[in-house]
Amino acid sequence: MLHGELIIKVITVLGTAAFALSAVLAALDKKVDIFTVIVLGTITAVGGGTIRDCILDSPVFWSMDISYIVIAVVASIAGFFFFPLIQLKKINKLYLYIDALAIAMFAVQGTDKAWSLGFGLPVAPVILGTITAVGGGIVRDVLLQRPSLLLTKELYAIPVALGCLSYSLVLSFAPQYSSSGALFSAGLIVFMRHLSIQKQVIVPNWAIINRGK
Amino acid sequence: MLHGELIIKVITVLGTAAFALSAVLAALDKKVDIFTVIVLGTITAVGGGTIRDCILDSPVFWSMDISYIVIAVVASIAGFFFFPLIQLKKINKLYLYIDALAIAMFAVQGTDKAWSLGFGLPVAPVILGTITAVGGGIVRDVLLQRPSLLLTKELYAIPVALGCLSYSLVLSFAPQYSSSGALFSAGLIVFMRHLSIQKQVIVPNWAIINRGK
Amino acid sequence: MLHGELIIKVITVLGTAAFALSAVLAALDKKVDIFTVIVLGTITAVGGGTIRDCILDSPVFWSMDISYIVIAVVASIAGFFFFPLIQLKKINKLYLYIDALAIAMFAVQGTDKAWSLGFGLPVAPVILGTITAVGGGIVRDVLLQRPSLLLTKELYAIPVALGCLSYSLVLSFAPQYSSSGALFSAGLIVFMRHLSIQKQVIVPNWAIINRGK
Repeated sequence: MLHGELIIKVITVLGTAAFALSAVLAALDKKVDIFTVIVLGTITAVGGGTIRDCILDSPVFWSMDISYIVIAVVASIAGFFFFPLIQLKKINKLYLYIDALAIAMFAVQGTDKAWSLGFGLPVAPVILGTITAVGGGIVRDVLLQRPSLLLTKELYAIPVALGCLSYSLVLSFAPQYSSSGALFSAGLIVFMRHLSIQKQVIVPNWAIINRGK
Repeated sequence: MLHGELIIKVITVLGTAAFALSAVLAALDKKVDIFTVIVLGTITAVGGGTIRDCILDSPVFWSMDISYIVIAVVASIAGFFFFPLIQLKKINKLYLYIDALAIAMFAVQGTDKAWSLGFGLPVAPVILGTITAVGGGIVRDVLLQRPSLLLTKELYAIPVALGCLSYSLVLSFAPQYSSSGALFSAGLIVFMRHLSIQKQVIVPNWAIINRGK
Repeated sequence: MLHGELIIKVITVLGTAAFALSAVLAALDKKVDIFTVIVLGTITAVGGGTIRDCILDSPVFWSMDISYIVIAVVASIAGFFFFPLIQLKKINKLYLYIDALAIAMFAVQGTDKAWSLGFGLPVAPVILGTITAVGGGIVRDVLLQRPSLLLTKELYAIPVALGCLSYSLVLSFAPQYSSSGALFSAGLIVFMRHLSIQKQVIVPNWAIINRGK
């Protein structure tokens, strides 16, 4: 179990940094300053969880452990100076997989937090888990005036939502398997992100509205 | 009284669906996928009330009754498949009137909720009522990168605000008439929306800033 | 001390009005109506503090003193009719300095509020102070579909963040000097805004990301 906790800790640190770095990459063609990079990096890293906690009316998670903020700020500053590294093909792929692990873990954790508070069971935890994982990135894109992930065909938010749904189904119908259900759901998200990153799978055409026009 | 409750229930269900459908219509020229339609439909339907409840620091309304979410999701999915129906002239007009009933009712309910919590009387309930009715639509438009209703000349937010103001005035000066005041204020909103839908009345020119330039 | 309280009161009133007027100026080329001017003015004036209070999970400040809302609404209406005045060179400069005083004071007050609640010490108060001073303006710009201050080279958010940082450092290492530390930090913000307003100092080039491309 201690082993599991260590893995979670590592993914949290790497994932928070990966979220912050995504803001650096998103900001590249806007010529923003280092302060804005830090702001956007931090919002991307902790924004989703902040919205979740406001909706859940529970204390904002980073008020009790500011290391999330510190990691996001440090990663943003590092990204400001070393962003060409993340653009290198191999490192970029590594970065995308770290990001995939992070959204998978944050999605499952967000679902779990809402569930354990008995918040709008069994539907609302799916929403809160999804907000946790993708909310920060959406706010980042709005502030950068670029189309958010909701407007692209990339498989990003859909895997997250399906993972949260899968975990909620486990918690509803087979709560005794919650641990393996969490792992399975996170794995589902990572697998779908893998299909997107490696095989360029996108949202199928039948799922696009008004596609004929 | 039971009769009144039934009417409120019907308007709530139809109105929540109408709000979700407005997101389907708003998303048509962005070629988004069905998941985004559901997200935007749900945000439009419950976003305003969610912001209100966060500001009021009271439990988010859909955490206690998830049927709002279910209705919004089902309406969004139906809208995804059958949106050409809502574009038919007659059905579109019916839809606009259901939406008018819905914003009228949500505006009055939002004002009432803030008032009964004694929140910043007598001014703040007007703001909270307006947020309840139009907040979700504004977030939807921001996420779709389109001009929100705040930037158009359509009579939409102004009727809502006037209705909330009218209801607040009744609660301030003639609280014994709160029921008829609520009906009158909702009626005022519906009537002004009717002027907009049927007679194309828009914001008059003297009320536009910098109109000479 | 009573003298100090009076000064704070005056800056609060003038500053709230200045924030509202900034929305009038920002809205000029969008040809919005007077209602939208009032909405944007009020959001700019109280939006930052509202986000701060939601994150802090403390009662929203204007629910306990609605004079903030009243000042913002009155200033917005005045701005709607008399905006050419604020565009006059001398009055505009006066306006910019009132705004500078206001962001300085709101930044320090926001930092102080988070600090006194023991919220995520010592890092989070810097964030909350910055949100208090610039959050409303950012929401205003998002709603107006214009690039927010995060996307410009103007020295606006950076002075605010440095002032909040300076005040947090004083509260961390020399809490006995909190009053003079607050004054110094606010002065730092005003001084940097002065450099921006009077000497057109902007963010230096080395602090811009991807500047070579």
